[in-house]
Amino acid sequence: MALVNEHFLKLPESYLYTDIARRVNAFRATHRGADPVNLGIGDVTEPLPPACVEAMREAVEELGRRETFRGYGPERGYDFLTEAILKHDYAAHGIRLGAEEIFVNDGAKGDTGSIGELLRWDNSMAVPDPAYPVYAESNILWGRSGQQEEGGAWSNLTYLPCTAESRFVPHVPDHRVDLVYLCSPGNPTGTALTRAELKQWVDYALENDTILIYDGAYESYVRETGVPRSIYEIRGARRVAVEIRSFSKTAGFTGVRCGYTVIPRELTVSTLEGERIALGALWARRQSVRSGGTGYVAQRGAAAVYTPEGQEQVRALTDFYLGNARFMREELKRMGLEVAGGENAPYLWLRVPEGMTSWRFFDRLLYEAHVVSAPGCGFGPHGEGYLRLTAFNSAENCREAMRRIRKIL
Amino acid sequence: MALVNEHFLKLPESYLYTDIARRVNAFRATHRGADPVNLGIGDVTEPLPPACVEAMREAVEELGRRETFRGYGPERGYDFLTEAILKHDYAAHGIRLGAEEIFVNDGAKGDTGSIGELLRWDNSMAVPDPAYPVYAESNILWGRSGQQEEGGAWSNLTYLPCTAESRFVPHVPDHRVDLVYLCSPGNPTGTALTRAELKQWVDYALENDTILIYDGAYESYVRETGVPRSIYEIRGARRVAVEIRSFSKTAGFTGVRCGYTVIPRELTVSTLEGERIALGALWARRQSVRSGGTGYVAQRGAAAVYTPEGQEQVRALTDFYLGNARFMREELKRMGLEVAGGENAPYLWLRVPEGMTSWRFFDRLLYEAHVVSAPGCGFGPHGEGYLRLTAFNSAENCREAMRRIRKIL
Repeated sequence: MALVNEHFLKLPESYLYTDIARRVNAFRATHRGADPVNLGIGDVTEPLPPACVEAMREAVEELGRRETFRGYGPERGYDFLTEAILKHDYAAHGIRLGAEEIFVNDGAKGDTGSIGELLRWDNSMAVPDPAYPVYAESNILWGRSGQQEEGGAWSNLTYLPCTAESRFVPHVPDHRVDLVYLCSPGNPTGTALTRAELKQWVDYALENDTILIYDGAYESYVRETGVPRSIYEIRGARRVAVEIRSFSKTAGFTGVRCGYTVIPRELTVSTLEGERIALGALWARRQSVRSGGTGYVAQRGAAAVYTPEGQEQVRALTDFYLGNARFMREELKRMGLEVAGGENAPYLWLRVPEGMTSWRFFDRLLYEAHVVSAPGCGFGPHGEGYLRLTAFNSAENCREAMRRIRKIL
Repeated sequence: MALVNEHFLKLPESYLYTDIARRVNAFRATHRGADPVNLGIGDVTEPLPPACVEAMREAVEELGRRETFRGYGPERGYDFLTEAILKHDYAAHGIRLGAEEIFVNDGAKGDTGSIGELLRWDNSMAVPDPAYPVYAESNILWGRSGQQEEGGAWSNLTYLPCTAESRFVPHVPDHRVDLVYLCSPGNPTGTALTRAELKQWVDYALENDTILIYDGAYESYVRETGVPRSIYEIRGARRVAVEIRSFSKTAGFTGVRCGYTVIPRELTVSTLEGERIALGALWARRQSVRSGGTGYVAQRGAAAVYTPEGQEQVRALTDFYLGNARFMREELKRMGLEVAGGENAPYLWLRVPEGMTSWRFFDRLLYEAHVVSAPGCGFGPHGEGYLRLTAFNSAENCREAMRRIRKIL
């Protein structure tokens, strides 16, 4: 009898964005003609940078001609992309990595949701709270998260509270864990770790033989000096950290699908007998049986991000979204709301009015202001009492959303 | 201490195609100027069909304009693609499926290598022998394959011998297993299951509550009437079979990355308490935390396969490769070699001369004839004594390969 993998049954029935979509659909059905402004799901709205469009157009033409056709690509990605990544994202910032430490993928979500399977299922883990739900939920599938308790917390997870008191920064726990997910600049709070804060994490990991999964999907929004763009800026990080980056929020690639994962050569995990195993070699072997590689057109588009025009266009794009964020942040503050984020990140983290829950304020914004947000409680227990607003929209829509919110407060 | 998932250590160090590439590199290093014909890895060589190129070019342009830009796509794929699949691959053949039963993916390999994780790790399984290595190897990662024994077989697998005596067809075993992988037309033997043979499998699965993973990556090469193009042509298959298809070998998408998986609504697996769980709902939930969806440009390209021009071009493309296969099949037979496949598939399955092993004949073809093949033993214990040749090359290269082989025999 084919038996189900019972860990899969622990996955909550619904996913945050599905819940949001359901509520928005109900609103639309009862409010014909209303035009809600969507500041909910973190999806980009601006077109691809022209340099990427041009490169992808050429790539398509190449695939249409026998002389330039390409079939299966190299499993870890094409050299033209890996070399551009090494040069611009790392060497330019004083970080030396080798080509065999880069794994090009079809966007950060897949690798973020899969990397944890390299570790034993009963290794302990910690996640920032609130955080991108994939960290906790992907680990459910290996039985690592335990059971979901009243209030939404998972029994085997250590939650790292990111509260107003801690400036929404996750701090090292008072006990050891084997695996920690970090995100900086952070989703959903929009808070970036300083060098000192990140160093605490690397030191903790070195001391405790902990693996850090460092989600750098929003790296291109960092503007402040003193905020690291890569965890490898911290000494020792090569021995403890995997870094995952994406072109989704950098260059509008959410529908193109391309990103990459860095696993340094020195990063090892232990067998029960104490033998050290290189995580990168293990991941390479895993990919050779579980992944068909990343599409050529997407890789050409991603490489164009690193051309002089691409760099300029991507900077303009992220500046644009940051402009939206700054504008909304100031407006919301003027309305008397407490708001974090929006300085090195495209997200604003908004405290809901006293006495309300995340979902109640979500509903109020939707039904009274016709603005879609994301309820903080969907990102973890400590997200309750907050809402996330994204800066991914046109300037006009962001202005309109602020006008509408001001009216109902 | 971060501990490794020890199942991953069981994965053999090298992958078949990596081994082949290593030997070819050694050959090239010692034979400067030699130009080996590659009939080894099953990768297409002809350019994309013009209809796909045109659709992908338009898709890239759309992503470059604000009005037509698209970010994250629907998790299961865009309606325009799902609807084309339902209409042309199923309804046209009398098979009724619903949109919620189709899961668009980035090529068959990922889903083929992941679908088994929906079942309990200790469910028993069977694979054709020889077969695409991903079936057995992906299951190693969940501990299901057991240990690798002398000779390459895995201790917990039931092997379904595909030998000359059985016309290279896998037959139902004399005991029950929970999970069976099937591939028709088959890689590497190029043999397609008849309706009667496939019916035996569906009946076996219905009787034993077995899940069939039906790999239909080479479906578009079927020319013979009486050979099913889909397992759902067999009554009852909706209750037991997952079908995985790909645009890779149909339309030259190995570097574009697009395919799809079908999980019918009626397909369920059991909990330990006997409750039945719909596999499709479970997969959808899994995808929502483990996959970022399939790129828009690839999906537009795939949808173009179903236009009248696309259908004609894809037919011409597969006819072309089948022409290569037929030509080589006849040539090899004329040389006195035993050869199977090549009629409904782009693969030829060649018996090596008496007294030789797969690798020895591989080396002989490489060093004496300058032809790259794939050793049968790389596809399973019963592949020993065979070689696989692919028809994925130009007509001229296929002719040249046959000339070279004839000279050395």
